[in-house]
Amino acid sequence: MPPVVSLVGKPDSGKTTLLEKLIPELNRRGYQVGTIKHHVHQFEMDKPGKDTFRHKQAGARVVALSSPTGLGVITDTDTDSDVELLAARYFGDVDLVIAEGYKRLDFPKIEVYRSALHSDPLPNRDGSWVAMVSDVPTTDDFPCFDLDDYQGLATFLIDTFIAPSSCSEISLVVNGAAIPLNTFVEGFLRRTIIGMTSSLKGCDNPKEITLTIHNDDADDC
Amino acid sequence: MPPVVSLVGKPDSGKTTLLEKLIPELNRRGYQVGTIKHHVHQFEMDKPGKDTFRHKQAGARVVALSSPTGLGVITDTDTDSDVELLAARYFGDVDLVIAEGYKRLDFPKIEVYRSALHSDPLPNRDGSWVAMVSDVPTTDDFPCFDLDDYQGLATFLIDTFIAPSSCSEISLVVNGAAIPLNTFVEGFLRRTIIGMTSSLKGCDNPKEITLTIHNDDADDC
Repeated sequence: MPPVVSLVGKPDSGKTTLLEKLIPELNRRGYQVGTIKHHVHQFEMDKPGKDTFRHKQAGARVVALSSPTGLGVITDTDTDSDVELLAARYFGDVDLVIAEGYKRLDFPKIEVYRSALHSDPLPNRDGSWVAMVSDVPTTDDFPCFDLDDYQGLATFLIDTFIAPSSCSEISLVVNGAAIPLNTFVEGFLRRTIIGMTSSLKGCDNPKEITLTIHNDDADDC
Repeated sequence: MPPVVSLVGKPDSGKTTLLEKLIPELNRRGYQVGTIKHHVHQFEMDKPGKDTFRHKQAGARVVALSSPTGLGVITDTDTDSDVELLAARYFGDVDLVIAEGYKRLDFPKIEVYRSALHSDPLPNRDGSWVAMVSDVPTTDDFPCFDLDDYQGLATFLIDTFIAPSSCSEISLVVNGAAIPLNTFVEGFLRRTIIGMTSSLKGCDNPKEITLTIHNDDADDC
């Protein structure tokens, strides 16, 4: 799973505008970025009139649009998706995930604060805050970047989150929840799965293995 | 992985219009449907001006929009996605996947043919054709449904594809390709993973287990 940081800030503080400069800067330095935007209400992502839009309107639970250069998937959910699950399942090939709108989750947080618009930064800044991006210096004991200093922020993100992340990793998701694994269990699972599958045709030199089990024995089926 | 059928037909034969009646009918009978639409060119799925659209334009490789009722994910890809991989990864909670625009793949095919518009059905109908939906009867030895007979087609799909599909299954994807598993290997992998993870906190009564391994040991890392 790639590292996840949460971008927070009061409305109109400039989170999206910052991302529009930060993402190309990280790309220029050779890193792929993914974003997760949280929305509290129902949303429409597709364009009215398109076939996938019509399939969804007709009642399809999941619609996908697939081409040689891209993939779009829109699905109904019964509950808010777990950010770690999203990162593990959909963001495997990016170097950093930036989540927006997840103030309450315990990811490292970067706050965008614009004193010209709001008298104070967000309340309840706790130990999960790792940086500020602001038009005024702050007195916190974590770095504060100027609103225009997307280059400094990029360097901070690379040094703090991208570079240290392990290059061989495993994620286990059961019934929709990410299961924390210690180093021993991680190594044990990784070696066992690679070992078990290594004799199957097409499984030599595995770089990414995804194994999904639907175990309806757990129900009456 | 849910069963996949491919809906094919010449342009304007009425594939999407049929789906707009078929999907609600399958829903009414208690089945969840997913669709995959193939597109040969680059596409834009999001709405201009939205935050996720701006993130993507700025160069994010993957963007997700997540709410309590839905999830949308748009990602760049380096190549056409494997339909079996899509079905395994994104369509785990549907009963049937209907793919559109995949004439060349070896899924069971249902052709929509409208004699008022085209002089002939698609050429090269091979053993993968399982049904026709047409305004004229055909002489093939598989069922032919009237263009309006979405109820008959729904019954056919349920009897032929949904009902027989196993209710406990496993999929293995390595380096982006689905690995065929025989019953012995399936059972062996399933029992081993469930056994290995059963003592971890949160893993009792597992209904769905997803295990992803990024094994960069395969490269110089």
